[in-house]
Amino acid sequence: MVDVAIIGVGQTSYGLFPERSLKALFCEAVREAFADVQRGLDPGLIDEAYIGSLSTGGSQLGNFAPLMLENAGLAGVAGRHVENACASSGYAFRDACFAVASGRRQVVLAAGVEKMSDLPRQRNRQWLGVSGDVEWERLAGTNFPGIYAMCARRHMYEYGTTKAQITGVAVKARANAALNPKAQIRSPITLEKALATPNLAAPFVLSDACNITDGASAVILCDAKIARDFTDKAVTVVGSGAASDYVAIHDRDTVSSFKAARQASQQAYQQAGIAPSEVSLAEVHDCFSIGEILAYGDCGFCAPEQAGSFLEEGRTAIGGDIPVNASGGLIGKGHPIGATGTGQIYELVKQLRGEADDAQRQVQNASIGLAHNVGGSGGCVVVHLFRAPV
Amino acid sequence: MVDVAIIGVGQTSYGLFPERSLKALFCEAVREAFADVQRGLDPGLIDEAYIGSLSTGGSQLGNFAPLMLENAGLAGVAGRHVENACASSGYAFRDACFAVASGRRQVVLAAGVEKMSDLPRQRNRQWLGVSGDVEWERLAGTNFPGIYAMCARRHMYEYGTTKAQITGVAVKARANAALNPKAQIRSPITLEKALATPNLAAPFVLSDACNITDGASAVILCDAKIARDFTDKAVTVVGSGAASDYVAIHDRDTVSSFKAARQASQQAYQQAGIAPSEVSLAEVHDCFSIGEILAYGDCGFCAPEQAGSFLEEGRTAIGGDIPVNASGGLIGKGHPIGATGTGQIYELVKQLRGEADDAQRQVQNASIGLAHNVGGSGGCVVVHLFRAPV
Repeated sequence: MVDVAIIGVGQTSYGLFPERSLKALFCEAVREAFADVQRGLDPGLIDEAYIGSLSTGGSQLGNFAPLMLENAGLAGVAGRHVENACASSGYAFRDACFAVASGRRQVVLAAGVEKMSDLPRQRNRQWLGVSGDVEWERLAGTNFPGIYAMCARRHMYEYGTTKAQITGVAVKARANAALNPKAQIRSPITLEKALATPNLAAPFVLSDACNITDGASAVILCDAKIARDFTDKAVTVVGSGAASDYVAIHDRDTVSSFKAARQASQQAYQQAGIAPSEVSLAEVHDCFSIGEILAYGDCGFCAPEQAGSFLEEGRTAIGGDIPVNASGGLIGKGHPIGATGTGQIYELVKQLRGEADDAQRQVQNASIGLAHNVGGSGGCVVVHLFRAPV
Repeated sequence: MVDVAIIGVGQTSYGLFPERSLKALFCEAVREAFADVQRGLDPGLIDEAYIGSLSTGGSQLGNFAPLMLENAGLAGVAGRHVENACASSGYAFRDACFAVASGRRQVVLAAGVEKMSDLPRQRNRQWLGVSGDVEWERLAGTNFPGIYAMCARRHMYEYGTTKAQITGVAVKARANAALNPKAQIRSPITLEKALATPNLAAPFVLSDACNITDGASAVILCDAKIARDFTDKAVTVVGSGAASDYVAIHDRDTVSSFKAARQASQQAYQQAGIAPSEVSLAEVHDCFSIGEILAYGDCGFCAPEQAGSFLEEGRTAIGGDIPVNASGGLIGKGHPIGATGTGQIYELVKQLRGEADDAQRQVQNASIGLAHNVGGSGGCVVVHLFRAPV
């Protein structure tokens, strides 16, 4: 079986860039990924591409991948647009791994892009809302803040998790994002001030939610056997797991955990032959703060009933047992929907190489990284495990 | 390297079914594919799914694949929505092949679905138009009939192809579709009557265009080593090729040929070790009649300058040298955008097994089948080659 390695990563800054086009954002991320390949990479060697996006800029709804590729100087490359809501580029990356692992493709691009600021506010609500079950869940009047709030409520009820612990996720996220020059929200916030922001959907306050974000990210993968031709610091993909679930949460057995996340992480651990305790750092899907608390249990970092205190005790802070979202996560770094999955991988690759841009943000002795990317409210999840260069 | 085999195929009738839901169409195709597996298949064995669609019903824009899967009794399966305009499910199939060929997945579903009748006329124009280059080509006022008409004009100018030859594609398509119980247009038409239909975009008349269609199709693939566990009549995937091109035709060197189709078919032939002359039958992308004429040259069935007479002489009719679109093609069978790619494969598998539903439609002694699926006006193309059961 062919092993897969990452030889280059790129990512735009995340934020609101109404003056920049979707194509320009995509090109910047791809160019940076090429520039990141230590010994360089001829664009002609890219022989397949997977591009994650939800709204495709709101206008280029068909042939999206070919158009992005031609604008990045990659006209001709076989590419397709992969959609799985907020997990679009996590799945694009998984498919890129399959392509390389098949032995039929050698060097493959996985990328993601979203320009949410091109969508008018009404349109944003429309695009975001339609990642839930439109026919049953959405027409009943609920949306993502409401659904994740129900997950939070249930977690509090079952495990005694507190509102302060949940919002503590956002406080940690913003502290980390303040150290990340590419993050959208660079201002740290105290727990007191975060809890005093306006109510969103109980128990959430506004600080518990991620923002509207523009951005793009890109990862170049290849057959691990030839990785050394391109770089001495290839990061190996050691595990990939993915699962779906009923999209509407009313069809699920539980909402204090995402079944698809448990299945996806178990698959990834099994493939890698790694236990959760061996994970050095993780990037997890905190579109709402509770998302990170759910991830602790679903990825086996701790028992679900310990998740609140696991956060509160600083065990997932930088310098803790297993730093989570050292990048700032979706809440601090930003959540450009389709770009988030490969953006998480960008962060992990930089960290595993010891190249985090800020010394305070660098996780020490990181050997195994985990990326946890969720579509909607757990309708699909993809988890990847990476090993540092040897 | 792992070889890939097809063990089951399913497809709804193509047509306008305003009373049936997108989910119902998808389920019917998937159920039929399961029923088509000779010795049966436990749904629990499906371990990955790729679903092609362009408009996703116009409403379920995110998490589309998980929602389709849960409605087909496949909740939990890792799935994603693949979009590449009219080649969406052709690419979904290619990715399903990569997944199996990787040796990491054993039994995989590739499917496609589109319910165009759910989109109001205005919305249909919107969705269809946005598979071209929205920013440059579409805003200049042109659309697919106009673009394909330019391709036709150029083919006539360069090669002396006649309007009667081009429209002859539609006449053949409808003759074949009349024999296909699942086709949308069951009425044959004479060349004289076809040429007398209203003008569309010169040189096209209305008969040169495919229709608005609802439908779904599904293919179940597995590692060829285990195919015999499920069926004695597995069809082998012997070649897969894909390429993209500049989406707007003003950026191309030529419009009397699709470069991406030439590249994709060359790749597929090379992988299969097969020459064009060995192809027994083909399903090609005739969204407009000229599309089939282009395909003859691009897939190497004849020289481009001979394409018009190749059709006119009946060499691509059932009973001819290389029957093309025995199903009726997009013009006769119908073109439910996202379902077309796997729908072409449905037809080829049935033909290669000698199971075409109408004896008159069965291509005799078919050993190699080719599927040619085009996104938009050649912005992306995917070509597959299949070998009959041995």
